[in-house]
Amino acid sequence: MYYADLARRLRTVHAINVTPFREDGDVDYASLEKNVEFLVSHGLEVIVPCGNTGEFYSLSVEEAKAVTRFVTETVDGRAKVLAGIGYDTKTAGQMASFAQDAGADAIMVHQPVHPYLTREGLIRYYTEIASGVNIGMVLYARHAAIDRDVLDQVTAIENVLAVKYAINDLPGFGNLVQSIDNPVVWLCGTAEMWAPFFFAVGAEGFTSGLVNIAPKMSLKMLEGLKKGDRKSVQAVWREVAPLERLRAKAHNGYNVSVIKEGMDLLGLAPGRIREPASKLDKTDRQELVRILRSWGKLDEGPDTDQQDGHELSSAASSGP
Amino acid sequence: MYYADLARRLRTVHAINVTPFREDGDVDYASLEKNVEFLVSHGLEVIVPCGNTGEFYSLSVEEAKAVTRFVTETVDGRAKVLAGIGYDTKTAGQMASFAQDAGADAIMVHQPVHPYLTREGLIRYYTEIASGVNIGMVLYARHAAIDRDVLDQVTAIENVLAVKYAINDLPGFGNLVQSIDNPVVWLCGTAEMWAPFFFAVGAEGFTSGLVNIAPKMSLKMLEGLKKGDRKSVQAVWREVAPLERLRAKAHNGYNVSVIKEGMDLLGLAPGRIREPASKLDKTDRQELVRILRSWGKLDEGPDTDQQDGHELSSAASSGP
Repeated sequence: MYYADLARRLRTVHAINVTPFREDGDVDYASLEKNVEFLVSHGLEVIVPCGNTGEFYSLSVEEAKAVTRFVTETVDGRAKVLAGIGYDTKTAGQMASFAQDAGADAIMVHQPVHPYLTREGLIRYYTEIASGVNIGMVLYARHAAIDRDVLDQVTAIENVLAVKYAINDLPGFGNLVQSIDNPVVWLCGTAEMWAPFFFAVGAEGFTSGLVNIAPKMSLKMLEGLKKGDRKSVQAVWREVAPLERLRAKAHNGYNVSVIKEGMDLLGLAPGRIREPASKLDKTDRQELVRILRSWGKLDEGPDTDQQDGHELSSAASSGP
Repeated sequence: MYYADLARRLRTVHAINVTPFREDGDVDYASLEKNVEFLVSHGLEVIVPCGNTGEFYSLSVEEAKAVTRFVTETVDGRAKVLAGIGYDTKTAGQMASFAQDAGADAIMVHQPVHPYLTREGLIRYYTEIASGVNIGMVLYARHAAIDRDVLDQVTAIENVLAVKYAINDLPGFGNLVQSIDNPVVWLCGTAEMWAPFFFAVGAEGFTSGLVNIAPKMSLKMLEGLKKGDRKSVQAVWREVAPLERLRAKAHNGYNVSVIKEGMDLLGLAPGRIREPASKLDKTDRQELVRILRSWGKLDEGPDTDQQDGHELSSAASSGP
């Protein structure tokens, strides 16, 4: 019953918060608190620290644990917290236990980074992690090796509540949804640009990095999708598209950079970005300014050129 | 001068040793010692612990360090040791320093697992890791974001000695080799099946997991490639092909499984394989037996069927 209630709460937008970094490179907790407050105050009901938009793979395991604890304490029950965890079985298990002890509602298991994945091996990996905790678990699937048979077996585990599917093979996704009878929540793992298509074949929620700068747009899309209001969905989709195209440039390299620079332009305390990613160049930043202006989020003005040499910085802490 | 000498030593087969695991799941050091002795005694001059064939991503960071130290001590100067390291900048730096203190000759930096890679971010990532040690460094490139400009800047760093290129875009690889003037050693990162093609446009070495079961084949291919003896290369290539095809099945899922099962069949103490990979099924194991017999490495006999339920096990320690 507990798990069924929790699963119902996952049928929504999953807000992947950023992890702001200070000039000296460390996690900027003052800004992180602002980021999380921004999301909760805008009505986001699921917060995911240590997701990809949170630059999980630029964090050490110890940093990821500290971020999970801090976000869970900051949210303080006002939303469900899904903590991103990953890596080898032992490390993933330790991160999962830590998240449970910190009070997270569920763990979100990143796509295994191991290059060699087999059906039996994946089932063992997920089963071991799930059995180590008494909180919910969400799978993040980004590789075709996580196939129907793997998902059928793993979603039969009591505390495995949802699958965040991030492969844009829509008929394949539809087949999964229709051929797996376990009561699992299907989530679109590729955000607003793909959510309408995933919802068409059974998704009931989607993940979002966009929420960090435009939470109302994400929630409006969710509302449209839940109601089946295609016109409303299409209107949001059309507005969001230019930003998501910018994020997708250069093999998705600027996925988080665009969000953090957008937050910076809006005074939302994103902090720096860590390598192996980096800030936008002048041209992409100008495009971002153009997009935010088209959304009515930035005043028209000559500030684009003035900000050419602008560095992402936690100094932009005028805050929401 | 030191680095130039070391770089010259890298123009060879890079033997990626497996990491054997005991029945209880821990690293099996007795078997690991046998594996490494097998490679060194067969004349392999570069040993790489914690590569992908070593199931790096199934090891915790602490285990990877322990394996690096053990292999370096076991090799004891009889070959060059390149220790696989990776993950976020801080963790990678700690692993690199550990490898240096353990006596490794170089670090082999795995493809960053971060999904968002930018040119500037990658350069910063590699530069920071390289500057933290006074031993050699080899890049493992598996993603197109590690492009000409990234490689041009990073290979200009004094201790960056080689690039292990694992994208099978041969004209692209040829362009890299021809357009980068730094004295870097180019390696084929996709082993024997691709080495002849990479050598055609400038590679001078290749990585191999095959060495763990058939070191003479790998060395014969190297010899043929160095001499430009196409007939000899083609002969090895034709023999190796069925095994490499088996490893490539199911999105490469059985890449290491095939090697470990082959070692097991030959009494070479591979130990178990860890999740998210798993052992071969009956059909693939029969195919492997057929291949090893065609190589004259296994006696003909009815043992295929007898071994159906066979588990990879460190009990197969009759040794080389």
